[in-house]
Amino acid sequence: MKKKLYNKVVSLINDLKKNSGTHSPSIDTILEHCPELKIEVDACFLSNPYATELFIEFLNKDLIKTDTLREVLEYYPPQNREVSKNISKAINVDSKKIFVGNGAIEIIQAVLHNFVKKKICVISPTFSSYYEFVKAENEVVYYSLSKENDYILDSKKYVEFIKENKPDTIVLINPNNPNGGYLKENDIIYILENLNDVENIIIDESFIHFAYENIELSQISSEDLIAKYSNLIIIKSMSKDFGIAGLRAGYAVMSEIKVDFLLKFGYLWNVSGLANYFFKVYSDFNFIKQYEIVRKKYIMNTLMFLNQLSSLSGIKVYPTKANFALVEIKNGMSSFDFTMTLLVNYGIYVRDCSDKIGLEGNFVRIASRSFEENLLIIKALKEILCSKK
Amino acid sequence: MKKKLYNKVVSLINDLKKNSGTHSPSIDTILEHCPELKIEVDACFLSNPYATELFIEFLNKDLIKTDTLREVLEYYPPQNREVSKNISKAINVDSKKIFVGNGAIEIIQAVLHNFVKKKICVISPTFSSYYEFVKAENEVVYYSLSKENDYILDSKKYVEFIKENKPDTIVLINPNNPNGGYLKENDIIYILENLNDVENIIIDESFIHFAYENIELSQISSEDLIAKYSNLIIIKSMSKDFGIAGLRAGYAVMSEIKVDFLLKFGYLWNVSGLANYFFKVYSDFNFIKQYEIVRKKYIMNTLMFLNQLSSLSGIKVYPTKANFALVEIKNGMSSFDFTMTLLVNYGIYVRDCSDKIGLEGNFVRIASRSFEENLLIIKALKEILCSKK
Repeated sequence: MKKKLYNKVVSLINDLKKNSGTHSPSIDTILEHCPELKIEVDACFLSNPYATELFIEFLNKDLIKTDTLREVLEYYPPQNREVSKNISKAINVDSKKIFVGNGAIEIIQAVLHNFVKKKICVISPTFSSYYEFVKAENEVVYYSLSKENDYILDSKKYVEFIKENKPDTIVLINPNNPNGGYLKENDIIYILENLNDVENIIIDESFIHFAYENIELSQISSEDLIAKYSNLIIIKSMSKDFGIAGLRAGYAVMSEIKVDFLLKFGYLWNVSGLANYFFKVYSDFNFIKQYEIVRKKYIMNTLMFLNQLSSLSGIKVYPTKANFALVEIKNGMSSFDFTMTLLVNYGIYVRDCSDKIGLEGNFVRIASRSFEENLLIIKALKEILCSKK
Repeated sequence: MKKKLYNKVVSLINDLKKNSGTHSPSIDTILEHCPELKIEVDACFLSNPYATELFIEFLNKDLIKTDTLREVLEYYPPQNREVSKNISKAINVDSKKIFVGNGAIEIIQAVLHNFVKKKICVISPTFSSYYEFVKAENEVVYYSLSKENDYILDSKKYVEFIKENKPDTIVLINPNNPNGGYLKENDIIYILENLNDVENIIIDESFIHFAYENIELSQISSEDLIAKYSNLIIIKSMSKDFGIAGLRAGYAVMSEIKVDFLLKFGYLWNVSGLANYFFKVYSDFNFIKQYEIVRKKYIMNTLMFLNQLSSLSGIKVYPTKANFALVEIKNGMSSFDFTMTLLVNYGIYVRDCSDKIGLEGNFVRIASRSFEENLLIIKALKEILCSKK
């Protein structure tokens, strides 16, 4: 019975992946084609479930109970420059330096298509859209993180590499996806100070709310550095930290000239009514106060999960300050088999990294979810790793 | 009292317009800055309110009552190619020829930025994004509709103009915005047959559900012509006919090569969870059956409204097959004064067309709304036009 389902799921995922590029098909898509599959935990999906709950609470109170959801769905949302005013309130950056996006992915596309001149340098491994969306006429150079060094970026060596290769645009994700490697504020400033002749320094902070440098787990961001470094472009997804990927909400902080350029030729009504509602909430002190509690709760949760993961034998967990871990499978299974076994036998969906450029070996990426879901993940991993030892 | 509010609103609208380009600020934005203004009817906004109601009914039944809204907001929506499968079911066009957009406006931007080679011809007057979003290095030529001919397009003269001016891309909105001028199916075929050497023929059918050619008011579309004319690009907004502008949902029908090109470098997750839900409903026969009823009800409504409008003295109503009318103010008021008086004294918001290229005279565009709202509009217009005669 399970064997039959296993074979069906394997062939389904292989089919779906052909249409998904180097991304995993969503569980929604998988279940549409295979409704008999029971998915208990979506640990492929990188978001804080407690933040989703909090946002749903606000939405219920503000839109459902007041019967005003219709207005949000029926009317045109405000234009880009209007929405950015709420973000400005939230992050204390001049709204003229804020560009609002239909998810961070739209901003990645906009920045790559409009500001890369000739050559872009991306980290390897990293989020694939940063090299896949680059226009055909542009060159991509890769700065490879090494396995021996646990895929940790050395900012001095990185600066040397950039000075030598002279790209006009560079991209760092902080913490990096898929390994969670984190650059401290000092490293970021070191890079910015030493690379002021690079035209565009993209720092993707989509996972920054999960990182911390002190025991209070205070929020970190390089957004205010835009005042000093006009070549900086901070890209921020809301999907991960606020658990609202379905809303498609993101923003970027960049120079006023860049914002003006993008808005001159497009991006007029690219934010939905609900995403606009989210940005209103985002600038609401009462929401952010409650958000800070669930953010810290989730970080503590993740820390515990990573501890448990690291204690399992048969896998290696790489250092991370994100809400996920890059895990190397060392018990002889391929990462694809491992992923399929977890999915079919335990209903746990993780990210098989076999298609990720820059990883040598059998890797999966496992997200931290709620406390209860993390327990299920650990239990399943223990069983798989014991049986195959 | 009203005079003070009038002055405040005049200066507010003037300010907001500076940031809205050649678009009207949304009532949401106006009310945010001037909450004391009472807006009764948004007749600037071009949508079928009965269709909104129908969609909200489905959404309540499917997502709110089942408590599954969270899933739609939390998870990543399926990718472009997955969403297009539902649209394919609805319109019976190969999904490989369907590109899904975050509203039609994203598709307009994508098509203009990626497929215009050197020269684009747009109608004048028309929807401003079709010339404003054109890249700086491209040339725009205007085919002017003449006032003497009631801004009606003559397809023979148009074809001659295109053959003479040789643009690589041409745009027609059918029915046209802001005048509602309609090209019959035969005219469209005549244009396509005679302009097969034009690389891109964009037909924007965002208002086509309001047009009709027979007494049964059957739905019209040129979407199936893609099978014969590979240079055709049909752009379809869902905002107007389904009354869901806040969702940001649109699609285009174009050649497979064009869809592949766009998806190769972007547009991965550009549809929100709710827009994806809408496209599921759009392919649901039960929804479409009920939609057809509210579509026809709204057309009948609009016909009655246009009849009443036409009978008023002091204005001229131009021929339309859309859900709005281009109205020339002939009682001596400027279109801006007329718009502000309607807004402040009657709470009715219409579109002042003084910034529209290609209109000679004092024009406003008035949308048809619900039966009751249309009565309010007529009543207010009667009062204004009588008092100022």
